[in-house]
Amino acid sequence: MDIADWRRKIDELDRRLVELINQRAECAHEIGKLKRNSEMPIYEPDREKIVFDNIARHNPGPLSNIELRQIYERLIDVMRQIQRDEMAPETNAGSDHTELGTND
Amino acid sequence: MDIADWRRKIDELDRRLVELINQRAECAHEIGKLKRNSEMPIYEPDREKIVFDNIARHNPGPLSNIELRQIYERLIDVMRQIQRDEMAPETNAGSDHTELGTND
Repeated sequence: MDIADWRRKIDELDRRLVELINQRAECAHEIGKLKRNSEMPIYEPDREKIVFDNIARHNPGPLSNIELRQIYERLIDVMRQIQRDEMAPETNAGSDHTELGTND
Repeated sequence: MDIADWRRKIDELDRRLVELINQRAECAHEIGKLKRNSEMPIYEPDREKIVFDNIARHNPGPLSNIELRQIYERLIDVMRQIQRDEMAPETNAGSDHTELGTND
């Protein structure tokens, strides 16, 4: 395979990744709705550990767990913003999203 | 579905994401090897635009293109580190990786 072939493969992987990342966002959105209507706490710090443990346990390489975690920290940060907006869309628009932990 | 059900779905999606992200890393690694053995330039700025255009064009939502791009900027940053290490493993170990663009 030459470089163009590998890039075609990357572009194809990216299309599948975009689909799965959006499915994950939909799940975070649904959890946000359920939390809004329940007595569950907004912030559950143990959940982030479970997510990182899950990806590390299923990491086949070549990425190290540290590299994978670097990517996931950003992914979770974006999901957290979505869910926070879902939790309190009226009051939080435009505010920053830095003080909450992982909510998915 | 309750919150536990959605979290199980997230954990399942994460396992598939981890697999695909690692496949993408393998492609970046192979491109790094090919570049090392060819006259191709190390840095090709147009490639980053193609990657972002591809993900935006195939984004079904609910994530916005901006949110998706936030995630991808981190993903590409990690891939760039891998490829730079592949390009010059002897000289770049331990140096920072900030001056190169997207190389995959």
